[in-house]
Amino acid sequence: MKKGILETNIVTQIGFVVHDIEKTSQAFADFLGMEKPAWSLTDTIDKTQSTYNGTPCPARAKLAFFKVGPNVSIELIEPDMQPSVWRDVLNERGEGIHHIAFNIQGMKDKIISLEADGMKMTQFGEYTGGRYAYIDTVSQLKTIVELLEND
Amino acid sequence: MKKGILETNIVTQIGFVVHDIEKTSQAFADFLGMEKPAWSLTDTIDKTQSTYNGTPCPARAKLAFFKVGPNVSIELIEPDMQPSVWRDVLNERGEGIHHIAFNIQGMKDKIISLEADGMKMTQFGEYTGGRYAYIDTVSQLKTIVELLEND
Repeated sequence: MKKGILETNIVTQIGFVVHDIEKTSQAFADFLGMEKPAWSLTDTIDKTQSTYNGTPCPARAKLAFFKVGPNVSIELIEPDMQPSVWRDVLNERGEGIHHIAFNIQGMKDKIISLEADGMKMTQFGEYTGGRYAYIDTVSQLKTIVELLEND
Repeated sequence: MKKGILETNIVTQIGFVVHDIEKTSQAFADFLGMEKPAWSLTDTIDKTQSTYNGTPCPARAKLAFFKVGPNVSIELIEPDMQPSVWRDVLNERGEGIHHIAFNIQGMKDKIISLEADGMKMTQFGEYTGGRYAYIDTVSQLKTIVELLEND
Protein backbone atom coordinates (compact mmCIF):
# COMPACT_ATOMS: atom_id res chain seq x y z
CA MET A 1 0.00 0.00 0.00
CA LYS A 2 1.24 3.50 -0.85
CA LYS A 3 1.85 5.32 2.43
CA GLY A 4 -0.36 8.15 3.64
CA ILE A 5 -2.46 8.58 0.50
CA LEU A 6 -5.00 10.76 2.29
CA GLU A 7 -2.33 13.20 3.60
CA THR A 8 -4.21 13.30 6.91
CA ASN A 9 -4.61 10.98 9.87
CA ILE A 10 -7.41 12.91 11.61
CA VAL A 11 -10.70 11.03 11.91
CA THR A 12 -13.53 13.54 11.57
CA GLN A 13 -16.62 11.30 11.68
CA ILE A 14 -17.88 8.06 13.10
CA GLY A 15 -20.86 7.16 10.93
CA PHE A 16 -23.71 4.87 12.00
CA VAL A 17 -26.53 3.39 9.92
CA VAL A 18 -29.81 3.16 11.85
CA HIS A 19 -33.42 2.19 11.20
CA ASP A 20 -35.03 5.06 13.13
CA ILE A 21 -33.05 8.29 13.29
CA GLU A 22 -35.55 9.94 15.67
CA LYS A 23 -35.23 7.15 18.23
CA THR A 24 -31.46 6.75 18.02
CA SER A 25 -30.88 10.53 17.99
CA GLN A 26 -32.88 10.78 21.20
CA ALA A 27 -30.88 7.93 22.76
CA PHE A 28 -27.55 9.57 21.86
CA ALA A 29 -28.78 12.98 23.02
CA ASP A 30 -29.78 11.56 26.39
CA PHE A 31 -26.61 9.47 26.72
CA LEU A 32 -24.31 12.35 25.81
CA GLY A 33 -26.29 14.99 27.71
CA MET A 34 -26.77 17.01 24.52
CA GLU A 35 -29.71 18.47 22.63
CA LYS A 36 -31.36 16.19 20.11
CA PRO A 37 -30.35 17.62 16.73
CA ALA A 38 -32.79 18.05 13.87
CA TRP A 39 -32.11 15.64 11.01
CA SER A 40 -31.60 16.82 7.45
CA LEU A 41 -32.43 14.98 4.26
CA THR A 42 -29.76 14.48 1.59
CA ASP A 43 -30.42 16.24 -1.72
CA THR A 44 -32.08 14.71 -4.76
CA ILE A 45 -29.90 13.10 -7.45
CA ASP A 46 -30.10 16.12 -9.77
CA LYS A 47 -28.06 17.97 -7.12
CA THR A 48 -25.96 15.12 -5.68
CA GLN A 49 -25.01 13.51 -9.02
CA SER A 50 -24.63 10.41 -6.86
CA THR A 51 -23.38 7.07 -8.09
CA TYR A 52 -23.30 3.70 -6.32
CA ASN A 53 -21.22 0.92 -7.81
CA GLY A 54 -20.90 2.93 -10.99
CA THR A 55 -24.59 3.56 -11.62
CA PRO A 56 -26.80 6.56 -10.78
CA CYS A 57 -27.92 6.46 -7.14
CA PRO A 58 -31.22 8.17 -6.34
CA ALA A 59 -31.13 6.89 -2.74
CA ARG A 60 -31.56 9.50 -0.04
CA ALA A 61 -30.92 9.47 3.69
CA LYS A 62 -31.78 11.36 6.84
CA LEU A 63 -28.64 12.62 8.63
CA ALA A 64 -28.05 13.85 12.18
CA PHE A 65 -24.79 14.89 13.84
CA PHE A 66 -23.36 15.05 17.37
CA LYS A 67 -20.05 16.83 18.03
CA VAL A 68 -18.02 14.42 20.20
CA GLY A 69 -14.62 16.11 20.11
CA PRO A 70 -12.82 19.13 18.68
CA ASN A 71 -12.54 17.50 15.25
CA VAL A 72 -14.91 14.56 15.33
CA SER A 73 -18.66 14.01 15.06
CA ILE A 74 -20.98 11.05 15.33
CA GLU A 75 -23.15 10.90 12.20
CA LEU A 76 -26.42 8.98 12.27
CA ILE A 77 -27.75 7.90 8.87
CA GLU A 78 -31.23 6.54 8.18
CA PRO A 79 -31.24 5.55 4.52
CA ASP A 80 -34.32 5.06 2.37
CA MET A 81 -35.02 1.64 0.80
CA GLN A 82 -33.24 2.29 -2.51
CA PRO A 83 -29.83 0.65 -3.06
CA SER A 84 -26.92 2.55 -1.49
CA VAL A 85 -23.84 1.78 0.55
CA TRP A 86 -25.93 2.78 3.55
CA ARG A 87 -28.95 0.55 2.82
CA ASP A 88 -26.88 -2.45 1.73
CA VAL A 89 -24.72 -2.42 4.88
CA LEU A 90 -27.80 -1.91 7.04
CA ASN A 91 -29.52 -4.89 5.39
CA GLU A 92 -26.44 -7.11 5.58
CA ARG A 93 -24.98 -6.26 8.99
CA GLY A 94 -27.80 -4.48 10.80
CA GLU A 95 -27.55 -1.22 12.70
CA GLY A 96 -24.16 -0.03 13.87
CA ILE A 97 -20.99 1.79 12.88
CA HIS A 98 -20.76 2.05 9.10
CA HIS A 99 -17.63 4.12 8.43
CA ILE A 100 -14.98 6.47 9.70
CA ALA A 101 -14.38 9.67 7.74
CA PHE A 102 -11.40 11.88 6.90
CA ASN A 103 -11.51 15.43 5.50
CA ILE A 104 -9.25 15.56 2.48
CA GLN A 105 -8.29 17.79 -0.41
CA GLY A 106 -7.96 16.67 -4.04
CA MET A 107 -10.79 14.13 -4.19
CA LYS A 108 -10.17 12.91 -7.75
CA ASP A 109 -6.47 12.23 -7.23
CA LYS A 110 -7.08 10.56 -3.88
CA ILE A 111 -9.66 8.21 -5.39
CA ILE A 112 -7.32 7.33 -8.27
CA SER A 113 -4.50 6.53 -5.82
CA LEU A 114 -6.74 4.46 -3.56
CA GLU A 115 -8.19 2.48 -6.45
CA ALA A 116 -4.67 1.78 -7.76
CA ASP A 117 -4.01 0.22 -4.35
CA GLY A 118 -7.12 -1.99 -4.49
CA MET A 119 -9.43 0.24 -2.45
CA LYS A 120 -12.42 0.88 -4.67
CA MET A 121 -14.81 3.80 -4.49
CA THR A 122 -18.35 2.48 -4.04
CA GLN A 123 -20.47 5.62 -3.68
CA PHE A 124 -19.91 9.26 -4.55
CA GLY A 125 -22.03 12.37 -4.23
CA GLU A 126 -22.03 16.14 -4.14
CA TYR A 127 -23.54 18.22 -1.33
CA THR A 128 -23.79 21.98 -0.88
CA GLY A 129 -20.20 23.11 -0.40
CA GLY A 130 -18.45 19.80 -1.04
CA ARG A 131 -18.51 16.14 -1.95
CA TYR A 132 -18.11 12.71 -0.40
CA ALA A 133 -16.83 9.32 -1.48
CA TYR A 134 -17.11 5.98 0.25
CA ILE A 135 -14.11 3.69 -0.19
CA ASP A 136 -14.20 -0.08 0.31
CA THR A 137 -11.32 -0.48 2.74
CA VAL A 138 -12.99 -3.34 4.61
CA SER A 139 -10.44 -6.03 3.75
CA GLN A 140 -7.53 -3.80 4.81
CA LEU A 141 -8.96 -1.62 7.63
CA LYS A 142 -12.04 -3.64 8.72
CA THR A 143 -14.35 -0.69 8.10
CA ILE A 144 -15.49 1.53 5.27
CA VAL A 145 -13.71 4.89 4.90
CA GLU A 146 -15.48 8.05 3.79
CA LEU A 147 -13.61 10.94 2.20
CA LEU A 148 -15.06 14.43 2.67
CA GLU A 149 -13.89 17.38 0.61
CA ASN A 150 -15.24 20.78 1.52
CA ASP A 151 -14.58 23.66 -0.88
CA MET B 1 -32.75 7.43 30.04
CA LYS B 2 -31.10 9.69 32.63
CA LYS B 3 -29.36 12.51 30.75
CA GLY B 4 -25.61 12.76 30.45
CA ILE B 5 -24.68 10.00 32.90
CA LEU B 6 -21.06 9.98 31.75
CA GLU B 7 -20.61 13.75 32.31
CA THR B 8 -18.61 13.88 29.09
CA ASN B 9 -19.43 13.76 25.38
CA ILE B 10 -15.87 13.40 24.11
CA VAL B 11 -15.14 10.15 22.26
CA THR B 12 -11.57 9.10 23.05
CA GLN B 13 -11.29 5.74 21.28
CA ILE B 14 -12.61 3.86 18.30
CA GLY B 15 -11.91 0.20 19.11
CA PHE B 16 -11.61 -2.57 16.52
CA VAL B 17 -11.41 -6.34 17.02
CA VAL B 18 -9.11 -8.03 14.52
CA HIS B 19 -7.73 -11.49 13.82
CA ASP B 20 -4.14 -10.44 13.07
CA ILE B 21 -2.92 -7.30 14.83
CA GLU B 22 0.39 -7.28 12.95
CA LYS B 23 -1.30 -7.28 9.56
CA THR B 24 -4.01 -4.74 10.41
CA SER B 25 -1.56 -2.46 12.25
CA GLN B 26 0.61 -2.41 9.14
CA ALA B 27 -2.41 -1.61 6.96
CA PHE B 28 -3.47 1.27 9.22
CA ALA B 29 0.10 2.55 9.47
CA ASP B 30 0.42 2.61 5.70
CA PHE B 31 -3.04 4.11 5.18
CA LEU B 32 -2.53 6.83 7.77
CA GLY B 33 1.12 7.50 6.86
CA MET B 34 2.21 6.70 10.42
CA GLU B 35 4.71 4.37 12.04
CA LYS B 36 3.45 0.89 12.84
CA PRO B 37 3.13 0.84 16.64
CA ALA B 38 4.35 -2.06 18.75
CA TRP B 39 1.47 -4.01 20.30
CA SER B 40 1.24 -4.62 24.02
CA LEU B 41 -0.34 -7.59 25.79
CA THR B 42 -2.97 -7.04 28.47
CA ASP B 43 -2.00 -8.15 31.97
CA THR B 44 -2.79 -11.50 33.55
CA ILE B 45 -5.95 -11.86 35.64
CA ASP B 46 -4.09 -11.56 38.97
CA LYS B 47 -3.38 -7.94 37.94
CA THR B 48 -6.51 -7.14 35.90
CA GLN B 49 -9.07 -8.68 38.29
CA SER B 50 -11.12 -8.99 35.11
CA THR B 51 -14.68 -10.22 34.96
CA TYR B 52 -16.85 -11.03 31.96
CA ASN B 53 -20.58 -11.50 32.46
CA GLY B 54 -19.97 -11.70 36.18
CA THR B 55 -17.33 -14.43 36.19
CA PRO B 56 -13.52 -14.22 36.30
CA CYS B 57 -12.09 -13.50 32.86
CA PRO B 58 -8.57 -14.76 32.18
CA ALA B 59 -8.76 -13.72 28.52
CA ARG B 60 -5.95 -11.55 27.24
CA ALA B 61 -5.53 -9.41 24.14
CA LYS B 62 -2.86 -7.72 22.07
CA LEU B 63 -3.50 -3.95 21.79
CA ALA B 64 -2.13 -1.32 19.39
CA PHE B 65 -3.02 2.37 19.16
CA PHE B 66 -2.99 5.09 16.51
CA LYS B 67 -3.59 8.72 17.47
CA VAL B 68 -6.17 10.04 14.97
CA GLY B 69 -7.05 13.38 16.57
CA PRO B 70 -6.24 15.57 19.55
CA ASN B 71 -8.41 13.44 21.86
CA VAL B 72 -9.10 10.25 19.94
CA SER B 73 -7.23 7.06 19.09
CA ILE B 74 -7.94 4.00 17.01
CA GLU B 75 -7.39 0.90 19.17
CA LEU B 76 -6.78 -2.47 17.51
CA ILE B 77 -7.53 -5.50 19.68
CA GLU B 78 -6.52 -9.08 18.88
CA PRO B 79 -8.08 -11.23 21.61
CA ASP B 80 -7.00 -14.72 22.57
CA MET B 81 -9.45 -17.61 22.24
CA GLN B 82 -10.85 -17.45 25.79
CA PRO B 83 -14.32 -15.95 26.29
CA SER B 84 -14.36 -12.14 26.44
CA VAL B 85 -16.40 -9.29 25.01
CA TRP B 86 -13.66 -9.02 22.39
CA ARG B 87 -13.64 -12.70 21.36
CA ASP B 88 -17.40 -13.11 21.43
CA VAL B 89 -18.02 -10.08 19.20
CA LEU B 90 -15.22 -11.17 16.86
CA ASN B 91 -16.76 -14.65 16.58
CA GLU B 92 -20.29 -13.34 16.12
CA ARG B 93 -19.80 -10.31 13.86
CA GLY B 94 -16.31 -10.74 12.45
CA GLU B 95 -13.59 -8.11 12.32
CA GLY B 96 -14.57 -4.46 12.61
CA ILE B 97 -15.41 -1.64 14.99
CA HIS B 98 -16.22 -3.04 18.43
CA HIS B 99 -16.75 0.01 20.63
CA ILE B 100 -16.38 3.73 21.18
CA ALA B 101 -14.79 4.86 24.45
CA PHE B 102 -15.20 7.79 26.83
CA ASN B 103 -12.79 8.84 29.59
CA ILE B 104 -14.79 9.23 32.79
CA GLN B 105 -14.37 9.74 36.52
CA GLY B 106 -16.22 7.81 39.22
CA MET B 107 -16.39 4.39 37.57
CA LYS B 108 -18.49 2.66 40.24
CA ASP B 109 -21.19 5.33 40.34
CA LYS B 110 -21.30 5.56 36.55
CA ILE B 111 -21.80 1.80 36.23
CA ILE B 112 -24.56 1.82 38.85
CA SER B 113 -26.36 4.65 37.01
CA LEU B 114 -26.00 2.97 33.62
CA GLU B 115 -27.24 -0.38 34.91
CA ALA B 116 -30.24 1.33 36.52
CA ASP B 117 -31.04 2.58 33.02
CA GLY B 118 -30.80 -0.89 31.45
CA MET B 119 -27.23 -0.61 30.16
CA LYS B 120 -25.38 -3.52 31.70
CA MET B 121 -21.67 -3.82 32.32
CA THR B 122 -20.35 -6.90 30.54
CA GLN B 123 -16.59 -6.78 31.15
CA PHE B 124 -14.42 -4.98 33.65
CA GLY B 125 -10.69 -4.89 34.28
CA GLU B 126 -7.85 -2.98 35.89
CA TYR B 127 -4.72 -1.86 34.07
CA THR B 128 -1.68 0.01 35.30
CA GLY B 129 -2.97 3.45 36.18
CA GLY B 130 -6.66 2.85 35.65
CA ARG B 131 -9.56 0.60 34.81
CA TYR B 132 -12.03 -0.07 32.00
CA ALA B 133 -15.60 -1.26 31.72
CA TYR B 134 -17.54 -2.34 28.66
CA ILE B 135 -21.23 -1.42 28.71
CA ASP B 136 -23.86 -3.11 26.57
CA THR B 137 -25.41 -0.06 24.91
CA VAL B 138 -26.10 -1.86 21.65
CA SER B 139 -29.89 -1.67 21.76
CA GLN B 140 -29.80 2.08 22.51
CA LEU B 141 -26.66 3.33 20.71
CA LYS B 142 -26.01 0.54 18.17
CA THR B 143 -22.49 -0.03 19.49
CA ILE B 144 -20.74 -1.06 22.70
CA VAL B 145 -19.43 1.76 24.91
CA GLU B 146 -16.21 1.47 26.90
CA LEU B 147 -15.57 3.59 29.99
CA LEU B 148 -11.95 4.42 30.80
CA GLU B 149 -10.95 5.82 34.19
CA ASN B 150 -7.36 6.90 34.61
CA ASP B 151 -6.14 7.73 38.12
